[in-house]
Amino acid sequence: MAQAVFHHTFPNGLTLLAERMEHVRSAALNFLVPAGCVYDPPGQPGVASVLAEMITRGAGKRDSRELALALDNLGLDRDEGVGSMHLRFWGATLAQNLPAALEIYADILRRPLLPQEEIDPVRALALQDLQSLEDEPRQKVMVELRRRHYPPPLGNDRRGTIASLESMNVDVVRHQFRTTFQPRGMILSVAGNIAWKPLKDQVERLFGDWSGNDVPPLRMGKTPGGRGHLAKDTTQTQIAIAYPSVPFGHADYYAAQGAVHVLSGGMSARLFTEVREKRGLCYAVWASYMTFKDRASVLCYAGSTNERAQETLRVTLEEVLRLQEGISKDEIERLQAGLKSSLIMQEESTSARAGALASDWYYLGRVRSLEEIQAAVNGLTPKKIVAHLHRYPPRDFTIVTLGPKPLKLPRKFQSQPAKEAV
Amino acid sequence: MAQAVFHHTFPNGLTLLAERMEHVRSAALNFLVPAGCVYDPPGQPGVASVLAEMITRGAGKRDSRELALALDNLGLDRDEGVGSMHLRFWGATLAQNLPAALEIYADILRRPLLPQEEIDPVRALALQDLQSLEDEPRQKVMVELRRRHYPPPLGNDRRGTIASLESMNVDVVRHQFRTTFQPRGMILSVAGNIAWKPLKDQVERLFGDWSGNDVPPLRMGKTPGGRGHLAKDTTQTQIAIAYPSVPFGHADYYAAQGAVHVLSGGMSARLFTEVREKRGLCYAVWASYMTFKDRASVLCYAGSTNERAQETLRVTLEEVLRLQEGISKDEIERLQAGLKSSLIMQEESTSARAGALASDWYYLGRVRSLEEIQAAVNGLTPKKIVAHLHRYPPRDFTIVTLGPKPLKLPRKFQSQPAKEAV
Repeated sequence: MAQAVFHHTFPNGLTLLAERMEHVRSAALNFLVPAGCVYDPPGQPGVASVLAEMITRGAGKRDSRELALALDNLGLDRDEGVGSMHLRFWGATLAQNLPAALEIYADILRRPLLPQEEIDPVRALALQDLQSLEDEPRQKVMVELRRRHYPPPLGNDRRGTIASLESMNVDVVRHQFRTTFQPRGMILSVAGNIAWKPLKDQVERLFGDWSGNDVPPLRMGKTPGGRGHLAKDTTQTQIAIAYPSVPFGHADYYAAQGAVHVLSGGMSARLFTEVREKRGLCYAVWASYMTFKDRASVLCYAGSTNERAQETLRVTLEEVLRLQEGISKDEIERLQAGLKSSLIMQEESTSARAGALASDWYYLGRVRSLEEIQAAVNGLTPKKIVAHLHRYPPRDFTIVTLGPKPLKLPRKFQSQPAKEAV
Repeated sequence: MAQAVFHHTFPNGLTLLAERMEHVRSAALNFLVPAGCVYDPPGQPGVASVLAEMITRGAGKRDSRELALALDNLGLDRDEGVGSMHLRFWGATLAQNLPAALEIYADILRRPLLPQEEIDPVRALALQDLQSLEDEPRQKVMVELRRRHYPPPLGNDRRGTIASLESMNVDVVRHQFRTTFQPRGMILSVAGNIAWKPLKDQVERLFGDWSGNDVPPLRMGKTPGGRGHLAKDTTQTQIAIAYPSVPFGHADYYAAQGAVHVLSGGMSARLFTEVREKRGLCYAVWASYMTFKDRASVLCYAGSTNERAQETLRVTLEEVLRLQEGISKDEIERLQAGLKSSLIMQEESTSARAGALASDWYYLGRVRSLEEIQAAVNGLTPKKIVAHLHRYPPRDFTIVTLGPKPLKLPRKFQSQPAKEAV
C-alpha cells in the first residue's frame, strides 16, 4: 500500500502535513505548538500546564461550556498534552467531522478567551496534579531523574511548584499565550480519510493570516547530573537511570534505537530476561529512548522490593554495560521482526500516523516513508550496533532512587563522578 | 464496509470467532480461558496470577527462553491478563505470522511445562506485584471497592495474599492448570487480514482433539458491601463508589450504558463538568460500567486533596442521583456522536475487534454487528434512560476512601444501610 503523504509550509511558518488513508472512515489531527514547559518564564514554572487547561475554557464566540459541547457533539476523542517542547492537541473522530473540528481548533489556538473566572478552578487542578505526584512514586522518580539528567529548562517538570501555582494570575497566563502561540514552528498533522486540496484550503483560510514572531531561543542552565535519593517510606524502592545517547536524525540513530530494543524490546529482551524473568527482581523494568533535537538519552526504570533493590540496581547497570560486549544475530533478527510488526500497526492507525508525521517533521524537517524506516532497520547488524556503543558508550549515568533507604553504587560504576551518595 | 464475521463452536466446546478485515496487514488474536482469579482454590488466592506467569515459561518442546524467543521472532506484541472470570492471552502481529503464533499458543494452552525451577522467581514477582499495590493508592482503593461491592469470589483481587503466595508450590499451580484449562467455554477470537477456512482448519487441528470437563460452578459468599476507609498518610484522598446496574445483554443494557455516558463520557459530561471543571475538585474523576454475566455495576473514582475530599464525595454522589431527575436531548445527541465515533475507531483496529468479538460471545453467545449497536444507541431517548434509572435507581452504594482521614457520608445518603462509618 503506497503512502500518500502531503505537506505544505505556509508563509507564516505553519506546516501542514497529511496522510490519506482511504480504507478508513476516521481521521486524527495533531497540533504541535512550540509552547511546552521549557518556555515557562523563569520563576513561574507551571504556566504552560495552566495555559493548556485554560485554553479550552472558551474560545471565539463560545464560552467554556459551549466549547466542550461543540467538540463532544463531533464525537471527538481528544486530549491536550504538555511536553517539554510542545503543547500537543490531539483529536480523532469521523473523517467527515474533521473540517468542523478544525474550525473549532482555530478558535482555541488563536482566539482563546482565557477568562478570569476560570483561573481559580484551573489553578486548583494544577495544584492537585502536582500534589498527587507525591502519592505516585513511579512517576515521581522519573520526574526527578529528568530534572537531574538535563539542564534546566529541558529537565523541568510541567507541573511547576506550589509557590508558582499559588501566585499565578490570569495575566501571566495570557502573556504566556501571546508570546508562545505563534504559527512559526507550529505543526498540524492529519491522517485518515481526507482529501488534500480541501484540507489545505481550509487550513489556509483558518490560519493563513496569522502572523507572529519567532519562538524565543532557550537559555540552558547547568545540568545537575549525578545521583540522588528521595527518602520515602514506601513498600518498594524505585530506581531510575539515565545516560546520554544520540538524537533523532543522527547517523547513529537507528543503531541507538536498536541497542535499546536489545535491552528492552519484547519479552526476550535482556532487561526483561535478566532482571524480571530469571531473578524475579521486579515486576516492571524497562528502558526507553527519549530525544530532544540536540540531545537524547536512554532512560531506564525498575521498581523492586526494598530488600532486593540493591541487586536490581546492580543487574540493571550490568546489563546496560554488557551491551558493548556484543549482540547476537538472533537479537537483531528479533528487533527487525518486532519493528516490522509495529510499523504495520502504525500504518493502520490514524492517530499513530498523525503523531509520526508531526514527530518526523519536527526532528528531521521531512517525513520518512515506512519503506525508508524498514530499510534502515533491515540494515542493522550486530557489528553496527556494537560500533555505535563504542563510539557512544553508556556512561555519565544519572541515577535517582526513591524508597526508605539509599542504595550503594556498585564498585565498578564508582568511576562515575559521584556528586552525591545514591 | 460490510463486516465479515465467522464463528464455529467445536464439539469440545471451544468457540472460534473471526472477522476478516481485508484492508489491513495485521492480525490480532485473543484467547479467553475461563480460568480467572474467581477460580482460585479457597485458601490459596493468587494461583491464577501465578499460573498466568508460569504458563509462558516453557511449553511443548521449548523451554522458557526458547518460547520467549519464538514469540518475539514473530514480531508478536503480546500480553497475558488475569481477570475475574478469564485469563486473557492477547497478541498482534503481521497477518502472515498468525498461523505460526497459533501453533505456539496451542503449546502454551495445552502443554505448558510449568517447571519447578521457575516457581521461585515467579512467586517473587507475584509478591512484588502485591506489595507494590501499597504504593499505588489509586489502584488500591479500587481493589478494596471491588472486594466490598461483590460477593467472594467475584470481588477477589488477582494478586492474592502474602501468606498464600509464600506457601504456593508448583503442584498447586499444576493442579490449577489441570482443573481450569479446558476447551469448554474457551473462546478464541481473531481479527485482521485472515481467511476463514484455513484458520478454522488450523484451529481444529491444534485444539479439536482436546477434551475436558465443564468449568466448575462458582459458590458465592456474602457481599461485604457498605463503607470502608483505608487509613494512609497520603497527599490526596482517594474516593471509590460502586452501585448496582443491569448486566450486558439485559433489555436495559444500552440505557444503563447511556446513563454512564451522560455522567462520564467526554469532556462535557456531568462528572467532568461539575467536579473537575467548575470546582477544580479533582484532577481525575470518572464513572465506568463493569459487568459480569449475572450482575453489573457502575464504578466511580475521584481523587482529591484531603481538604476538598469531603466536598468531592458530596458532589459526586449528588451527580449520580441527579441523573434520575432528567436528561436533555443534547446529552443524548452527544452520547450518540461519541459512540458512533468510537465504533468507527473500533472497526479500524484489529485488536479492538478481536476483543469485542470475544466479549460479545461470552456475554451474549453471539456477535453484534456494528449496525445493531448503532441502531440500539440511536434508539436511546432521554425518556428511556430516565425510565431505566427509575426501574434501577442508583442506591446500595458501596463507598471506599483512602487517605489520612475518613469522610462523613452526606446526610441525604444516610438512608443507606451504614455498616461502618466511612
